[in-house]
Order: sequence, then C-alpha cells, then structure tokens
Amino acid sequence: MEVTTCIDGSIVALAGGVGGAKLAHGLAYHIEPSQLTIIVNTADDFEHLGLHISPDLDTVMYTLSGLNNHDSGWGLSGETWNFLKSLERLGGETWFRLGDHDLATHVERTHRLGSGEALSDITSDFCSRLGIRVGITPMSDDLVKTVVHSDKGSLPFQDYFVRQGCEPSVRAFKFEGIAAARLSSVAREALEAPDLQAIVICPSNPYVSIRPILDLPEVSDILLERRLPIVAVSPIVGGQAIKGPAAKMMKELGTQPSCHTVVEHYGGLLDGIVIDSSDSNEVAAIEASGTRVMLANIIMNSMSDKTGLAQAVLSFALNLAERDLD
Amino acid sequence: MEVTTCIDGSIVALAGGVGGAKLAHGLAYHIEPSQLTIIVNTADDFEHLGLHISPDLDTVMYTLSGLNNHDSGWGLSGETWNFLKSLERLGGETWFRLGDHDLATHVERTHRLGSGEALSDITSDFCSRLGIRVGITPMSDDLVKTVVHSDKGSLPFQDYFVRQGCEPSVRAFKFEGIAAARLSSVAREALEAPDLQAIVICPSNPYVSIRPILDLPEVSDILLERRLPIVAVSPIVGGQAIKGPAAKMMKELGTQPSCHTVVEHYGGLLDGIVIDSSDSNEVAAIEASGTRVMLANIIMNSMSDKTGLAQAVLSFALNLAERDLD
Repeated sequence: MEVTTCIDGSIVALAGGVGGAKLAHGLAYHIEPSQLTIIVNTADDFEHLGLHISPDLDTVMYTLSGLNNHDSGWGLSGETWNFLKSLERLGGETWFRLGDHDLATHVERTHRLGSGEALSDITSDFCSRLGIRVGITPMSDDLVKTVVHSDKGSLPFQDYFVRQGCEPSVRAFKFEGIAAARLSSVAREALEAPDLQAIVICPSNPYVSIRPILDLPEVSDILLERRLPIVAVSPIVGGQAIKGPAAKMMKELGTQPSCHTVVEHYGGLLDGIVIDSSDSNEVAAIEASGTRVMLANIIMNSMSDKTGLAQAVLSFALNLAERDLD
Repeated sequence: MEVTTCIDGSIVALAGGVGGAKLAHGLAYHIEPSQLTIIVNTADDFEHLGLHISPDLDTVMYTLSGLNNHDSGWGLSGETWNFLKSLERLGGETWFRLGDHDLATHVERTHRLGSGEALSDITSDFCSRLGIRVGITPMSDDLVKTVVHSDKGSLPFQDYFVRQGCEPSVRAFKFEGIAAARLSSVAREALEAPDLQAIVICPSNPYVSIRPILDLPEVSDILLERRLPIVAVSPIVGGQAIKGPAAKMMKELGTQPSCHTVVEHYGGLLDGIVIDSSDSNEVAAIEASGTRVMLANIIMNSMSDKTGLAQAVLSFALNLAERDLD
C-alpha cells in the first residue's frame, strides 16, 4: 500500500471498538507510525472474573496487529474456546466470551496492573511485541466506568452491552470517575504536539465510545485551546448504525438516527464530518449548522475500504485546515 | 468395579500430587463416597500471573473426576495450549504450563477467593460440579508456603520444582505459615469422626507433600490423641522414586533412598507401610524398627493397579487395627 496522502505533521484519532479500529487501521497506512496516535476509550473497561478487560483497546490492538477476527470484528482469528467450556463446567460466568488466545491479554495485563504498571505502559509494551508501530494508548490510566441509566435501572456498561445485548432502553450515560481521570501521558503528548495537524473522530459510538474521551477535563481544555480541524466519520448510514446500538440509542434519547444527530451530539465541536454518499440528502442541513460535509463510501468491509476512507478523511481535514483555520 | 473390602467406618487419606491422586482414585472404588476424605497438601500452592494455583488439589480433583491426562499424570486430557502461545507473544511467563481448560480452574478459583470464599468451599463446589462424590479438601484454607533451602539459596517451591526442574540440591524445607494454619473444617471433621478406621498416607513425597499436612498443629494433636492405624504406601521402589524428586532429596539430605528411609522420616508415626514386592530385602530392617510391612505391587499404571493396591492397603490397615490396637 502506497502512502498517497502527504501529511507534514501528526494526527490523533479518537476511537472506540470495531468501527474505530477499522478507520485507525486505514489511517496507519497513510501516516508515519510515529506521527499517528490512536486514543482509545477505556470507559467500557471492566473487571470480569477478577480480570481487567479493556474491550476497545484490545479491538484496536488486535486490528492494527492483523490478529483480529475479520468476521466478527472483535476478538482474535483462529480463536478457541476451551477455557470457556471448562469454566461453564465449573459454574463460572460465561456471558462475556473470553477466548483462549484472548485470555492471555487479560491475564497478563491484570497481572501487570497488579504489580503497579500503568495501563498505558502495558499497552505500549503489548503493541510493540505485536509489531504495532503506531501509537495506541488508553485515554486514561485512571478507572472510568460507564453506567447506563435505562428503563431496567442503572447498569454497568458491559452488563447492558453484552449480557443484555443492548436490550434495555437508555435514558442517559454516566462516566464514573471522569472528573478526576487524567489523560494518559502518551495521549497528552499527542494532543499537545506542536505539529499536530488534525483530530479524527472515528466512526465509533458517539455516546459511549467517543463521549468519555471528550469529557476528560484535559481533553476539553486542549480542544478549546488549540485551533485544529476536528473531523468525524459518521457511525450512521441511512438512519442505521453500521454496527452496535448507536441508532437505537438515538431513538431512545428522543432524537432521529441520522448523521445530523451525530453532529448535534458533538455540539459545535466538529469542523467537518464524512458521511456516506447515500446520505447526500443530509448535507444541506448539516452544513447549515456550520459543519462541512464530505461524501464518501464510509462502510469499511475490505482493507481498501479502510485505506480509501482514511485517505478521504485526511484530505478533508487538511483542506479544512487550509481553508478555515489558517 | 465391585467393592471387595468390607469397611465399617470412614477412611482418611493424606495426599500430594500424582502418586497420591492415583491411590486416592483406587480407594474411591472401595469406600462409600461419604466415608472417604482425601486431605490434600496445599503447601505448594502459589500465585502465578496473579492466579491462585493449587497443583496438588487439581491433580487429585482431575484424577478423581476422570478428566486427567493419563499420560502425564497431571493436567487435563484433551488439553490445548493457545493461552500459553499468546502469553508468550506478549512476553508473559510461560515456565509454568497452564492449559486452556485448566486455566478455568485457576481463574474461577482466584475470582472466588477474591470474593471471600474459602478454598475448601470452592473445592467442594468444583468437585460436586465435576461429579466427584468422595471428599476432597485442602489441608487448610490458610496460606502455607513451602520454601526450599538449597545450594542455590532459598527458593519458592514451584520455582525449585517446575522452573528449575528440581535441579538444586536441597538442604531443608520450611513451611511458612504452618504454625498459624488451621485445618480445613472438612479435614478436621474427617480426622475427628468417631467411626474413622484408619489413616492412609499416599505414596506422595514425604518431605514436601505429606510433611506439611502432618506439621499442621491440629493434625499432630489429633494423631497423638487417637489410636488409629496409620499406614503409608512407599513412594520409593528399588531405591528410586516412582515419580518426582523424593529419592534425589533423600540423597541430598544425607540418607539412603529406600523404604526404610521413608519410615524413618515419619519417625514412629507409621503402624504399617506397604512396599513393593521387589523390595522384600527391606522387610526385616523396617519391622525391626517397629513398623509392620506388607509387600504388594505398588506401581500404579492401570486402574486395576490402583484398585488392587487400594484394597491391599485397606486390608492391611484394618488387620493392624484388629491385631495391634484393639
């Protein structure tokens, strides 16, 4: 794959799980590894069977290393499930699917956290061992816990997301610990880098994947201070979420599932948004609200979809920088 | 398999790992499940990768459930090693071989211990889920840690045993925490049962598998108070250990590897010992020291070896009870 976008500087991407990992994978083909930092949501991290699990971090790490399961989007390819079979025999909780290979990540990470290592340092080490050269970092080394307020009461995020399959109707989200959580040092360095060209918000869930990153006090401050193009890719196509409960949440929160709703959710933060060509009917309304729109194929099934979209996003962001911010 | 030994009462067996598990398996064929309790050494328990591992307990549990690996004697049959492969990729410690199925035991046990459950309760629950009806119980719910004093310094037991393959020359053993460790309540109940007929010391390592159980303050007290036949099966045949470092340890401790050395190690505790028929030359010396000897085939390769030896041990113990103690 040739590097076809000429970027003189660094890029930060904010990502959640599957959709974020795909775009991050595409971005990695266009940017010098040392110039790309993926800041990953950890507000859906949780403890399960005594293990610290960071689902989004793992999805991004597995995707960027090429070890991921291409069919499911999460987990590892060639995964086996013997741990889970034996766990079931012992009466353990099996609703969260932990594969045998995957388990190594959770056990080793939990072990190192217990020895006092920071999540961001462990992540850097794992990435380097998996041959990943771009920066992948948790948004914070501090614990932030997403609580889903729903018609079934207040639920820990993975309980809502995996155990109950996003069935409950959501009312609000709370990120416990967010006010005191500090940005990881790798993330801070990337966001404060003098040569930072743009911030890309990946097509991850705006409410539970991207919002926690944006709500970190230091992130809000940095984004206010720096005049940098912030460009998102819509996680919504044709009023449907490409994956996950984003559209369902929009309805439950009393809004219309649309790209426009994504822009409104980000409340003036976005300089531009890339939406699917099939959503061209939304362009006028979004641009009227002050956010530039680019049309592209935003559904990433193949590697060339990922790199194509990444290239479009980068060009769009750099053009915005020239036109609006210089 | 028919129950051919008529036992009117209960039996306690003290066991370590592989050899102990084999005899315990044989005993289980001759005794009503509710009348047999296997008290298992936990002084070689250790924490590895943040997981609480009880190697002897697992060997006995896997053997009695029929899930064990018949070739190696430890671990589970049909085991896979994908966790370990991925752990190696992440730079984790792989010297202690944790299989994918086996890992369920360690993760679930660690999780429950962390929630405040006692090791003996967790063990009972695991056993019941695995269809084991005889009692298997850790010697204690309290932590006891075997430290091997050797020519390479003081080593945690599994470091000596697995990591260094019993290579260092041993000088002494210390069981940290033993003075304060309490017998598990299942073990206490079994040892104090009014109908207890005999105590069988399985062919496990006398220094590091059986000694910790005997050194529990409550065990010494109970054995002194109760006049019950105590019968061991020798872990030594022809001056060699059937498995493991027992003979090597005997030499390093300045003694001759023999059945007689086993008897001397137990220092007057044994009423009888079952030794291999090929060691008949040892009978006179052992009996001269006041311990009765029975000759039998003590090498257990097949299930019928196990049940045959178990039957011999039980007959021997019950005969001793009639002849010497009534």
